[in-house]
Amino acid sequence: MEATGSLGPGDPQPPGTAEGTAPMERSGREATSEEKSVGFVLVHAGAGYHSESKAKEYKQVCKKACQKAIEKLQAGALAVDVVTAALIELEDSPFTNAGMGSNLNLSGDIECDASTMDGKSLNFGAVGALRGIKNPILVANKLLSEAQKGKLSAGRIPPCFLVGEGAYKWAVDHGIVPCPPDIMATKFSLSAFRKNRRKLELAEKVETEMIQTKKRREVSENTNVTASLDTVGAVVVDHEGNVAAAVSSGGLAMKHPGRVGQAAVYGCGCWAENTSGPNVYSTAVSTSGCGEHLVRTMLARECSVALQAEDAHQALLETMQKKFVLEFLWSHTTESMCVGYMSTQDGKAKTHISRLPPGAVAGQSLAIEGGVCRLRNPVT
Amino acid sequence: MEATGSLGPGDPQPPGTAEGTAPMERSGREATSEEKSVGFVLVHAGAGYHSESKAKEYKQVCKKACQKAIEKLQAGALAVDVVTAALIELEDSPFTNAGMGSNLNLSGDIECDASTMDGKSLNFGAVGALRGIKNPILVANKLLSEAQKGKLSAGRIPPCFLVGEGAYKWAVDHGIVPCPPDIMATKFSLSAFRKNRRKLELAEKVETEMIQTKKRREVSENTNVTASLDTVGAVVVDHEGNVAAAVSSGGLAMKHPGRVGQAAVYGCGCWAENTSGPNVYSTAVSTSGCGEHLVRTMLARECSVALQAEDAHQALLETMQKKFVLEFLWSHTTESMCVGYMSTQDGKAKTHISRLPPGAVAGQSLAIEGGVCRLRNPVT
Repeated sequence: MEATGSLGPGDPQPPGTAEGTAPMERSGREATSEEKSVGFVLVHAGAGYHSESKAKEYKQVCKKACQKAIEKLQAGALAVDVVTAALIELEDSPFTNAGMGSNLNLSGDIECDASTMDGKSLNFGAVGALRGIKNPILVANKLLSEAQKGKLSAGRIPPCFLVGEGAYKWAVDHGIVPCPPDIMATKFSLSAFRKNRRKLELAEKVETEMIQTKKRREVSENTNVTASLDTVGAVVVDHEGNVAAAVSSGGLAMKHPGRVGQAAVYGCGCWAENTSGPNVYSTAVSTSGCGEHLVRTMLARECSVALQAEDAHQALLETMQKKFVLEFLWSHTTESMCVGYMSTQDGKAKTHISRLPPGAVAGQSLAIEGGVCRLRNPVT
Repeated sequence: MEATGSLGPGDPQPPGTAEGTAPMERSGREATSEEKSVGFVLVHAGAGYHSESKAKEYKQVCKKACQKAIEKLQAGALAVDVVTAALIELEDSPFTNAGMGSNLNLSGDIECDASTMDGKSLNFGAVGALRGIKNPILVANKLLSEAQKGKLSAGRIPPCFLVGEGAYKWAVDHGIVPCPPDIMATKFSLSAFRKNRRKLELAEKVETEMIQTKKRREVSENTNVTASLDTVGAVVVDHEGNVAAAVSSGGLAMKHPGRVGQAAVYGCGCWAENTSGPNVYSTAVSTSGCGEHLVRTMLARECSVALQAEDAHQALLETMQKKFVLEFLWSHTTESMCVGYMSTQDGKAKTHISRLPPGAVAGQSLAIEGGVCRLRNPVT
């Protein structure tokens, strides 16, 4: 696990330890425009290492994504479309490893993973190893919404997970504009690719020599491919109290073509679940980090399950049931994580780069931060 | 959910209701050749509809897969390699919807999904939408075993899930022989494709007319694409008590190119987990059925979790701890399911086509069957 941004159940602990959304009552009447403008968004620009020199840019990206989401919420949009709008901003930034400026793979191509989940319907849409589409999240969202329309002609079940060339064709057939691959690579991602390729050539040369001289493998960490930021994501609560989550990633630098990471895998990249039956809370989770590890932990879903299981939350829940309190959390084991959040009551987004404490070693330490947000009463 | 074949914890109910493997004690000493020959395999040729006229062929395939697995077990092979050997037999049969004779997609191509999990290391390997490889399970197994070797040059993390063209290239680079796509299509799968294409054209014509005449959609079930068998799979226990599971599928007939189903998704197609820590039982599960539904239930992992959670098993466990008892189960909501099973003590495999009771409606009824197997004491 490298990092998660999540909305979870309320908790009697102080802000910065655990978080959530309380369930809400609904009525049949139409929401007023003021009620419709209630909502919250939390975005993250990926876990990894955020240099001080680029801190301003990362924060700016998060801010823009939050503002876009809040505009949508204020226009009455539902969570699953709002989270897509936030992701588009994150993907369009050349500073994030998603959409534009994604890491290049071993062949010098950009192949993206993305997925989204709607807490209301529990529907899921995902794309893996997708080339030539500037906003992979748009395809994931479209897969989700098309599947909600029911079966295709001749009783065929609509797909929820498409990869590679087939995913590209489906996207174009469904009105998503393709993007020439060379536009998606930025000066920065190309220069990182060239540097990584040299490191790789060197590492392989060293290994060949080691095999010849029968030396044990002791390659310096400096020869490793540059660790860059991973998956971006967001979680949203809309005026009906629906939650949604999404993630998008260019994947690991120098990955093998066709490699699919956690951002495309059900239960691993994102999770969203409205209150219902045994779930006393609505929860939404978006993860970031090394895909191979995250897949094996099913982190997104596990976080959601863990948040539901907290008995201690029950007391708080009862007192806050009518208040539409949501608590949010981010947590990382990487050097840093850049997040932004905003509610419909806020004039502007708050952004923050969370860093491990001085002296802490990435991968061996964990930072957890968060907050609480009280929204105006939603539709009751 | 359509069907599962699983190994699970022991249960005080009579054979035919629930099943499992009891944990075993290990010692440091080398196993004797007799001890090494202990093991069990359960295979399934997919849930769906197995016509009476082809019953012999389906049983034959299951038998062959069991025998292959037992040969491997008797030669001392470990579960993860044995399960691959069983899957290769299932894939090679033109009667199953996996490997040779797989369903054709909308473009008339064969694209396969497969995955495997090792209960000892919990490592996982998967391929999705893979063309031009006769045995997709071989690639999944190779991804799993390559990942166990540790990081790649320059600190890169080895992939566990590859799709499409990239997966094909990786397979060929790792010594797996490609197969011309026209060899993988059989007379039967080609004829089904042509029939389905006509149904699709007709359904789309009818729908266009309905839109024009503003009639509601009331297409006869007869115009639906032919429902064929789904994912094949197997679960294995080896002489060390390790479990492994695997699945392989050609996916839905007339699926969109690039569509990935549950057979490639972590936690959905298969699950295997040796006893350790909180897990008092070793469990292995392999699922079959409509991918889009199975992905959303995470059926394989959920079955494993449910089997662990059964408190009632504890009593049985204690009495049988030294006996290396395993119980096995299959369950389906489709018309039928063809299974085969065999232990190293058996002279030949038992095969069986499980059918819903007369009058039961597929999708609304559930059949559960199973058995118990006592192996000679494993390495203690």
